[in-house]
Amino acid sequence: MADLASLKRIAGRRAAELAESGMTLGLGTGSTAYFAIERIAERLKEEKDFTVRAVSTSFSTTLLCHQMGIPLLSVGSVDRLDLAIDGADEIDPARNLVKGRGAAQLIEKIVARMADRFVVVADETKKVDVLGASMPVPIEVHPNALSSLMRQVKELTGAERVEVRMAGKSKDGPVISDSGNMIVDAWISDIRKPAEMAALLDSLPGCIGHGIFAGYCSRVFLATERGLVEF
Amino acid sequence: MADLASLKRIAGRRAAELAESGMTLGLGTGSTAYFAIERIAERLKEEKDFTVRAVSTSFSTTLLCHQMGIPLLSVGSVDRLDLAIDGADEIDPARNLVKGRGAAQLIEKIVARMADRFVVVADETKKVDVLGASMPVPIEVHPNALSSLMRQVKELTGAERVEVRMAGKSKDGPVISDSGNMIVDAWISDIRKPAEMAALLDSLPGCIGHGIFAGYCSRVFLATERGLVEF
Repeated sequence: MADLASLKRIAGRRAAELAESGMTLGLGTGSTAYFAIERIAERLKEEKDFTVRAVSTSFSTTLLCHQMGIPLLSVGSVDRLDLAIDGADEIDPARNLVKGRGAAQLIEKIVARMADRFVVVADETKKVDVLGASMPVPIEVHPNALSSLMRQVKELTGAERVEVRMAGKSKDGPVISDSGNMIVDAWISDIRKPAEMAALLDSLPGCIGHGIFAGYCSRVFLATERGLVEF
Repeated sequence: MADLASLKRIAGRRAAELAESGMTLGLGTGSTAYFAIERIAERLKEEKDFTVRAVSTSFSTTLLCHQMGIPLLSVGSVDRLDLAIDGADEIDPARNLVKGRGAAQLIEKIVARMADRFVVVADETKKVDVLGASMPVPIEVHPNALSSLMRQVKELTGAERVEVRMAGKSKDGPVISDSGNMIVDAWISDIRKPAEMAALLDSLPGCIGHGIFAGYCSRVFLATERGLVEF
């Protein structure tokens, strides 16, 4: 069988074929989204009448687009996208997602929401039966809400653990997001009603964003050992 | 009849009597809340066994507490308050509120939510039959969501106008909140279902906070020409 990187490459390139000339695209982050971006850059060079513009969800994708010659617009200046392509950390059978291992879920969700079609590319290790199986839900929290929001999340979600994400060796103290907030990881397993859990987290003051994407994704391209699976 | 300032003073001081020794308080901002804070500072001096600690919702209230000798805790370190006292810009008969004329609604809501009792003090000009009658709903918006969120608010709320709040003479360009975001004013009149409107705004990615407080307020002390009205 092909190795995982080759499989991801197939999924990423497949998603890139959805781009049509004249579109404004949202480009996400991650090892599979990388191949989509690479393919879009190829198409800009190869196809004579193919032009697209894009917005980026992260510093790393912004750099990649600069290097590859994909013209970027400021995210805040765009009010609608034709197509967004991004990865995910967990995907359930109804295409609900958990994202945010990279702490970038706030901008990723802004971009996903403004897209007419939001397509997720990933490898099959990200597929789960029920969200919450493999990772905590990341919650971006205003520093002034840290203690009270952690208490509320514990009381209201049934989370087994609720922890401030620490930066480890990269800096002292907690991870600070690109927007200057802290990340709280809530170990909520068995999320059977993602939309309800998302609305609950949204309702907490000081919750700036969170990793549950319920009802956002319109198509998944999954790289599996049996080949590309769409759902 | 007494002038408006005297009426506000009565309402503010009445709310301050709810504070009991040992409590941790949330202290808000505004011309009526000022009198509550003043009265709490008096009680700290006058009553021998009366001790309280507080968190503040704004830079101006923090300064006031320092000057008046009210001991302050960091908002983010506290997970529950016994009592919070704040003003409001609009109050409906069911004690739903619109706040945020001062662009401080994010921290104000964090503080209100963590309080066992959230008491609002105001004068009767703030009383409305239906929220949205006199002012726009302030929405704190991540800069990267500015255009897309404004479009969504227009489409989903029926707002007549949706405008970025400009700083006027104090600085060039838009108002920047204490948390580094922009404020979008949405002229949504006739908000008959505040909880539903609040949930809708909460669900928009890049909405960091907004001024609708539905179900937060447990008591209103209203300064009126007929005297103090509680509801």
